Amino acid sequence: MEKSVQLSRISTRAPDALQKKSVKKETRKLKKAIARLQNILYAEGRHSLLVVLQGMDASGKDGAIRHVFNRVNPQGVKVVSFKVPTPEEAAHDFLWRIHAHAPARGMIQIFNRSHYEDVLITRVHGWIDDATARRRMQHINHFEQLLLDHQTTILKFYLHISREEQDKRLEERLKNPEKRWKYSPSDLQEARKWHDYLHYYEEVFDTCSPDIPWTIVPADQNWYKAYVIADAVHRALADMHLRYPRRSHLKSSKPTSH
Amino acid sequence: MEKSVQLSRISTRAPDALQKKSVKKETRKLKKAIARLQNILYAEGRHSLLVVLQGMDASGKDGAIRHVFNRVNPQGVKVVSFKVPTPEEAAHDFLWRIHAHAPARGMIQIFNRSHYEDVLITRVHGWIDDATARRRMQHINHFEQLLLDHQTTILKFYLHISREEQDKRLEERLKNPEKRWKYSPSDLQEARKWHDYLHYYEEVFDTCSPDIPWTIVPADQNWYKAYVIADAVHRALADMHLRYPRRSHLKSSKPTSH
Repeated sequence: MEKSVQLSRISTRAPDALQKKSVKKETRKLKKAIARLQNILYAEGRHSLLVVLQGMDASGKDGAIRHVFNRVNPQGVKVVSFKVPTPEEAAHDFLWRIHAHAPARGMIQIFNRSHYEDVLITRVHGWIDDATARRRMQHINHFEQLLLDHQTTILKFYLHISREEQDKRLEERLKNPEKRWKYSPSDLQEARKWHDYLHYYEEVFDTCSPDIPWTIVPADQNWYKAYVIADAVHRALADMHLRYPRRSHLKSSKPTSH
Repeated sequence: MEKSVQLSRISTRAPDALQKKSVKKETRKLKKAIARLQNILYAEGRHSLLVVLQGMDASGKDGAIRHVFNRVNPQGVKVVSFKVPTPEEAAHDFLWRIHAHAPARGMIQIFNRSHYEDVLITRVHGWIDDATARRRMQHINHFEQLLLDHQTTILKFYLHISREEQDKRLEERLKNPEKRWKYSPSDLQEARKWHDYLHYYEEVFDTCSPDIPWTIVPADQNWYKAYVIADAVHRALADMHLRYPRRSHLKSSKPTSH
């Protein structure tokens, strides 16, 4: 079956017509606006935002977080990086550790890798079969719908880099003492499975709920990557129609209920 | 629409033919067998059991836990009582605090009240509308399916008492110094909403996934209540075909994955 997203046909670079300098200026404006809106998000305490970052090794997930959110009050933003499951996490269903980090009302939560690893790396390595992967995708869609019903907006970004750019960055990790801590011997093993990863990413894009689409972010150039993400985050916050509340809900002594 | 379960037509007492003495003897046997199977469940570390207890105030949920599970190694059993959500819990979707207590492989987890309160007390008091309740029921079914896919067996018990028996027990709470700590002024308010509760319970039974049915437990007599629950727990554990593993998975140093 023809997949609706074919990553090999999507550019990993900014459109030629764009000028780096003016895009960077625009990004700075967006970041200011995001910081302002985050303050209202927190004060109002009704909505929340979940930002999911996925992409190959060295696609720039860490950099995206630093670059887009470094103006935001850290009290209102949480970042969690999902790594190899601990024994306790592995003793539970794959969404258990994910759900624990779902954002509270008023918060921005960033997932540096996510529940999608459980239908990506697991398939590339053949740890789960196709039927299990399909069930997991259903569970993922239901789980995200649960968050949606709780006034959580979900933004999912795939950081799209070229193979050449990845090679360059992995080499840089080995050479540059400031980046060497990021290097892992598994990087090169995973890089060899490039086409498998693309294949399973495309399948994820196809089976995800159309209510919560992925944004493919051309990510070879950091300045364009940051702009695309900042723009989407800004629009998501603007669409919430946030307002400062008249009184503080934070100090409320009323009994609470769901 | 006719509901498939009508609680008013179901007896709250043991069938007349049963003899209390022989039933109690049978329950003791079942408890021994449960304790033996729990040990294998824990050692094998593949399956888990979730026991959900619901019922009106004074229907005997606490007593059921003590009565059925007091022979089981407490290392392998966890009990959580869900009460009014804390502010942090209320800032998340209604399944957030529930999912956190999903059983790990090898464990028995008991829910004293549960996620079902979020479609029961909330409806009796009109805190959520019908559309929200329907969405929540869907989320509950999906969530339970997620646990099922993780080799978790779910047993759901409704402790079915008569209104007369409840009156008697609530009065007892006021009179008996050993039971007075359980009394809450809200007990009487909730008791007045008896028929509303029955109505919404019946709706829950109807909209639950047929894969994970409820057991209606006649609960006016504690000896019969304990027998019915012990019998169901024993069968659920026996159906898992548990086996002691050859080696310990608990000490495994292998990398873990979902």
